[in-house]
Amino acid sequence: MKIFKITLFLLSLSLFGQEDEKALKSIYDSSLSNGMSYIWLEHLSNNIGGRLSGSEGAQKAVEYTQSELLKLGLDKVWLQPVMVPKWVRGEKEIGFVESNNKRYELNICALGGSVATPKEGLNAEVIEVQGIEDLKAMGEDAVKGKIVFFNRAMEETLIETFQAYGGCVDQRYAGGMEAGKLGALGVIVRSPNLRLDDFPHTGTMTYGNLPVKQRIPSAAISTNDAEMLSSFLKKDKNLKLGFKQTCEQLDDVESFNVIGEITGSEFPNEYIVVGGHLDSWDLGDGSHDDGAGVVQSMEVVRLMKLNENRPKRSIRVVLFMNEENGLRGGKKYAEEARLNNETHVMALESDSGGFTPRGFSFDCSDEEFVQIKKWEPLFKPYLIHYFEKGGSGADIGPLKTEGMVLAGLRPDSQRYFDYHHTAIDTFDAVNKRELELGAATMTSLIYLYDKYGTAKKITLPVKN
Amino acid sequence: MKIFKITLFLLSLSLFGQEDEKALKSIYDSSLSNGMSYIWLEHLSNNIGGRLSGSEGAQKAVEYTQSELLKLGLDKVWLQPVMVPKWVRGEKEIGFVESNNKRYELNICALGGSVATPKEGLNAEVIEVQGIEDLKAMGEDAVKGKIVFFNRAMEETLIETFQAYGGCVDQRYAGGMEAGKLGALGVIVRSPNLRLDDFPHTGTMTYGNLPVKQRIPSAAISTNDAEMLSSFLKKDKNLKLGFKQTCEQLDDVESFNVIGEITGSEFPNEYIVVGGHLDSWDLGDGSHDDGAGVVQSMEVVRLMKLNENRPKRSIRVVLFMNEENGLRGGKKYAEEARLNNETHVMALESDSGGFTPRGFSFDCSDEEFVQIKKWEPLFKPYLIHYFEKGGSGADIGPLKTEGMVLAGLRPDSQRYFDYHHTAIDTFDAVNKRELELGAATMTSLIYLYDKYGTAKKITLPVKN
Repeated sequence: MKIFKITLFLLSLSLFGQEDEKALKSIYDSSLSNGMSYIWLEHLSNNIGGRLSGSEGAQKAVEYTQSELLKLGLDKVWLQPVMVPKWVRGEKEIGFVESNNKRYELNICALGGSVATPKEGLNAEVIEVQGIEDLKAMGEDAVKGKIVFFNRAMEETLIETFQAYGGCVDQRYAGGMEAGKLGALGVIVRSPNLRLDDFPHTGTMTYGNLPVKQRIPSAAISTNDAEMLSSFLKKDKNLKLGFKQTCEQLDDVESFNVIGEITGSEFPNEYIVVGGHLDSWDLGDGSHDDGAGVVQSMEVVRLMKLNENRPKRSIRVVLFMNEENGLRGGKKYAEEARLNNETHVMALESDSGGFTPRGFSFDCSDEEFVQIKKWEPLFKPYLIHYFEKGGSGADIGPLKTEGMVLAGLRPDSQRYFDYHHTAIDTFDAVNKRELELGAATMTSLIYLYDKYGTAKKITLPVKN
Repeated sequence: MKIFKITLFLLSLSLFGQEDEKALKSIYDSSLSNGMSYIWLEHLSNNIGGRLSGSEGAQKAVEYTQSELLKLGLDKVWLQPVMVPKWVRGEKEIGFVESNNKRYELNICALGGSVATPKEGLNAEVIEVQGIEDLKAMGEDAVKGKIVFFNRAMEETLIETFQAYGGCVDQRYAGGMEAGKLGALGVIVRSPNLRLDDFPHTGTMTYGNLPVKQRIPSAAISTNDAEMLSSFLKKDKNLKLGFKQTCEQLDDVESFNVIGEITGSEFPNEYIVVGGHLDSWDLGDGSHDDGAGVVQSMEVVRLMKLNENRPKRSIRVVLFMNEENGLRGGKKYAEEARLNNETHVMALESDSGGFTPRGFSFDCSDEEFVQIKKWEPLFKPYLIHYFEKGGSGADIGPLKTEGMVLAGLRPDSQRYFDYHHTAIDTFDAVNKRELELGAATMTSLIYLYDKYGTAKKITLPVKN
């Protein structure tokens, strides 16, 4: 209880004093004036490009970020080996529908993890469904031998676009598996996109434990094409759709999480993690997803190093590999932390795009949250207003343990699903200031958490 | 005092009841699902394009918005004649510097209101200054016969980008006048842009009462070119810059404010104005500045019409002409309101871009502001958090009178000065959802103000 009271006392001091206000101002000024995040992102996006797990781009990204972290003069920088799945897209996918003797090309892409079509492609009648429940209600007779078209759209009236995404991503993730069980030949999914455009969105899917022969090729089409296909089907129930993809799941390969550490001055064995994921999908450069989170996390440790006082706790930047199609990096990091009996007190992830930051969502106890909420006024000058309980990030999820604070940066998300997993998730879609404001916002939270703490010290239990 | 108490009572009722929550939800749902703002903007931007006062585009925009307002079934729709300045850009501007026998072309544009260069162009040595004070300190001897290069950049550490704009726009507005007084031959201004790119930003300038022979041609260059020019000047003080522009100020022409009204059911003589400006600069389509504000304001009256209850007060949408280079429309509207003894109780302008709305700034008494602040929690589900005292909008400024509430929509502004007054302020820079969220946010404020009011009734005094 004594420590608790002292913390509260220090906190009050700071809110009435101006030390923390000055610290945050200095953090924001540095990020906006002399920041490195945008320079790093330009290299990741334009020089390296897509970074799908197991690809040459992913390996280059490991090497590049490691070398940049080494330049920062951190206390430790290392690579943590992790085996990752390797899926390759193959040739550019082809898709078309034929209606009234006219052929309409589709903007199509294979879903990550999907099998290929037969070499000559697949051509079959189409049955439109609004989701997995709808599919199951149709039953095997209606589905067998057909291509299932999942056409549930994101709910446009939801203000939180991630909620709208959550409301339809199941058809992408499990649609192929469920349709395969019913004897369908293939699956076409409407891209999870709130606007109508011509860009198909890839993303991960699963076959679960389905026998190999029931695994059917699955692909996404653009929202414009989904609208077109649906309107054609209203007039012509026997319409045929053809598509061809040559993607392939290869053997797992070795890759790495990239980790850098500033060792704490007072509590070196209490770890604070800040991170994003280094892998991306292959269609674009992965600038928002999650190049932004990677460079912002690197900027956090750079800015923490600039501070005249060494942090009390050890700050680790962790650039996770394989968030997109396996989460192997996140799982590996947590597993090693447990094996090494490391005490993680806090983790912050940025994996919601590089847009103007609005705040954070916190996955923690009510008691912790009361403490954290007291810092909110310090962020007001930066138009940061969102301090709410909620999810954090996929990569840091496996670290979760009682007493720990997990947090996710919450940027403005209205444009995010225009770019997510598409060919236009590229460098030009990221605004320099917005990216830098995000990095400063993250650093400010880490600075405050390091200084005041909130969590009880709890050693992660050694279990899986 | 009795009215005041009743208002408070109604307000409490609503905050504890759910009528207003439902009303706002319905407003946001309509704007996001079946909104007209994006459709209108597409026409304004892609079919009409730039709408500089006195241009064919401006006239088409008057006709188009009038006809669209007529379709909404408002109680009145009319055009309010107003004489506006007509300035024409002429041929595409040319600019270059010569350094080490190499010629570097400049991305350059004339400032609105500038005179032309001599037909053969202007070619002279350059003196770089950081602003008007700096220029005056240099004095006539240093300036005479030269081209003055104003190179003060926007302050990147300011979170509010409009504040950063305010900190350097004086050199664009008055730089030509002040340099002309000191015998300079021309003026080049660094574009007010927080990023480095190749797009020059036009915008209005003044010569004040300067005699015609002292009026010197003034132009803006892109931020990249400003950096290049400044670095060249460090090495070569005698560097020469050439530029040529054929712009011209013609006689004033007649144009119009476009006005539509829903007449109030209880207080038809109390007017609430919502508006944006119909004119734009000529380089782009003026999609953010201020196509967005125009279509959002039109959407406000469309959504207010959808509500089952007629508003108590009269709601007027006013699409102002000539905000950019004269403010004639705003002045005319206020002048007519005074002549007609109309009581304006509130005015809201959207003229800060079509980005994700964050809230409003209010120009009103402290007493009014206390009332308005009570509505803030109703906006939380829409991530609207900014309710602060501050400026409103240029067009509604002339309406200002004691007891009235003036408000400005405050969207996220981090990207705004990437586009402002440039060739890339085009339709594709506006995100549909962000635009629609802004329209819904404006409608919600108008709905609440109409329902509860806050202002004392004050008739605008008849004066100029």
